[in-house]
Amino acid sequence: MKIRGGPLVGPGGGVLPLSLAVEVDGLVFVSGQLSLVDGRVEGDIALQTERTFDAIAAILSGAGLSLDHVIKATIWLTDPADFAAFNTVYGARLSAPYPARSCVISQLVLPNARVEIEVVASRDHRRT
Amino acid sequence: MKIRGGPLVGPGGGVLPLSLAVEVDGLVFVSGQLSLVDGRVEGDIALQTERTFDAIAAILSGAGLSLDHVIKATIWLTDPADFAAFNTVYGARLSAPYPARSCVISQLVLPNARVEIEVVASRDHRRT
Amino acid sequence: MKIRGGPLVGPGGGVLPLSLAVEVDGLVFVSGQLSLVDGRVEGDIALQTERTFDAIAAILSGAGLSLDHVIKATIWLTDPADFAAFNTVYGARLSAPYPARSCVISQLVLPNARVEIEVVASRDHRRT
Repeated sequence: MKIRGGPLVGPGGGVLPLSLAVEVDGLVFVSGQLSLVDGRVEGDIALQTERTFDAIAAILSGAGLSLDHVIKATIWLTDPADFAAFNTVYGARLSAPYPARSCVISQLVLPNARVEIEVVASRDHRRT
Repeated sequence: MKIRGGPLVGPGGGVLPLSLAVEVDGLVFVSGQLSLVDGRVEGDIALQTERTFDAIAAILSGAGLSLDHVIKATIWLTDPADFAAFNTVYGARLSAPYPARSCVISQLVLPNARVEIEVVASRDHRRT
Repeated sequence: MKIRGGPLVGPGGGVLPLSLAVEVDGLVFVSGQLSLVDGRVEGDIALQTERTFDAIAAILSGAGLSLDHVIKATIWLTDPADFAAFNTVYGARLSAPYPARSCVISQLVLPNARVEIEVVASRDHRRT
């Protein structure tokens, strides 16, 4: 088992009891990421999606992996009206063949957040 | 790694950047499915659940698997009043011993959708 | 494959078509748990989180595992105002290094429920 990052200090100063990623037997479970910069969430869905992918890519890079190793994503959007713009950025940051994914509408924990993405990556396989 | 299906054309004509299923080391991650027929979602919870299972079964069949290989399901319903009718169909389409599962209430991306189901299946094990 | 528990009798007397946990190749998928006592959900977020962990720990114990084997958690809260109090209990019931996790806001199926937690545990690895 390899564990990366955390516990984190949350936006309100409280400790968030989580690790950024936990790897077991070649599967890397990455904690749900959102567009958090300097303790705040700002921007429209396109910007938030870009920053969320930046966060995921940084965690995977720390594990010696890239977005090409993502096999599954779970996506929470706060507004179904964001779906098209979200897909444009999502489809550009990842490349085909794409991961399996589910996408539903939920309120998020942090104010102003419009998207949260959780991924599972594979250490030993790339989507090619 | 084996990847099946996708990218898909969504109901509005846009491309959905996802694969239907991604398999790594004997675990098959199937994208969240819902009752989509001819680009539209219609019907009550019973019909939608049946069609959602049809979609999942078709994806698994394409991988040489069946619903008996499902080990975990995540279920999103839009209305808690649908829970009982949903369980009736769910319990009939799957057989005991059942997969592990979680079921919560969320709005879904597509209009009229009342249920979305994501599953993880095992290539090498059946629930028997 | 090892399957534990279920089908269950739900609060309304109906059968819930699920197993408490399904294990495949060293990964233990535990069904989403909540604070259910004598068929009812009661109490504030702190009490409900404690009881939810009691339920998860009991399922893991039945599999010869403990909360130290949890590698990933998915958390649904019904109210973002519960986040801080939830984290206090969550951080106390688990120990660092923590599992990866995602936490979003959703309505839950059972009346009065304020938290549901799903975990994946590893048979062969502890978070130490």
